[in-house]
Amino acid sequence: MTTAYDPNNIFAKILKGEIPSVKLYEDEDTLAFMDVMPQAPGHLLVIPKQGSRNLLDADPAVLAKLIPVVQKLAVAAKDAFEADGVYVAQFNEPAAGQTVFHLHFHVIPRHDGQPLKPHTGGMEDIEVLKANAEKIKACL
Amino acid sequence: MTTAYDPNNIFAKILKGEIPSVKLYEDEDTLAFMDVMPQAPGHLLVIPKQGSRNLLDADPAVLAKLIPVVQKLAVAAKDAFEADGVYVAQFNEPAAGQTVFHLHFHVIPRHDGQPLKPHTGGMEDIEVLKANAEKIKACL
Repeated sequence: MTTAYDPNNIFAKILKGEIPSVKLYEDEDTLAFMDVMPQAPGHLLVIPKQGSRNLLDADPAVLAKLIPVVQKLAVAAKDAFEADGVYVAQFNEPAAGQTVFHLHFHVIPRHDGQPLKPHTGGMEDIEVLKANAEKIKACL
Repeated sequence: MTTAYDPNNIFAKILKGEIPSVKLYEDEDTLAFMDVMPQAPGHLLVIPKQGSRNLLDADPAVLAKLIPVVQKLAVAAKDAFEADGVYVAQFNEPAAGQTVFHLHFHVIPRHDGQPLKPHTGGMEDIEVLKANAEKIKACL
């Protein structure tokens, strides 16, 4: 198993603009965008622009800037979907569910009694993602 | 549903020393201790000393100090249990699985092919928790 950072992972390509994404928020250090295989409506990802494989090898200073953005997006996503709660998750290595090897936090609005869909579901329709992104951006 | 912070929640009582815990790490702002209902060996919690109900109402400056400690404990727990990965999770409100209403991050070592136990399992034996804590502290 390698634990090096691969600068050609798909989130690195999103950061370089080589792959499209439905963006929610961007600042000097951070990007937030919609997960294309949402486990619930409004499922979004927050990533640092600085490359690290996951939390384990990240620069603590990068993490300190990242987590307030995770918070900001969690509050907005909860409001946007009138959710009862928000699930925040961060997976390190495949044994923990990581599939893209650029540090990312999942932010998923939750509603009482509605189980999450598996993350291995299909790609969401791009127009649905864009509409959900507009809802979240309106609450930022 | 109330969303106020209850200063008598069990983690607040742990912080005040009114309830025992198996501690792993402490600094001016942060405490880490073993989860008494572990979903896998080494399951630990990281909490800020400043009270907030969860991520949604936390002071961003508190979060910025907290997350590098989450990282530090995640690295140590992975090493201590020779784990293949680490699952980091943070639940906001009951709909997302929150059961104690003081902000906390779960840090859970993961091994390939070993599913997590439900968090509603029984209390772990205190001697097992202490032994696991010693393993983690040795890797800090």
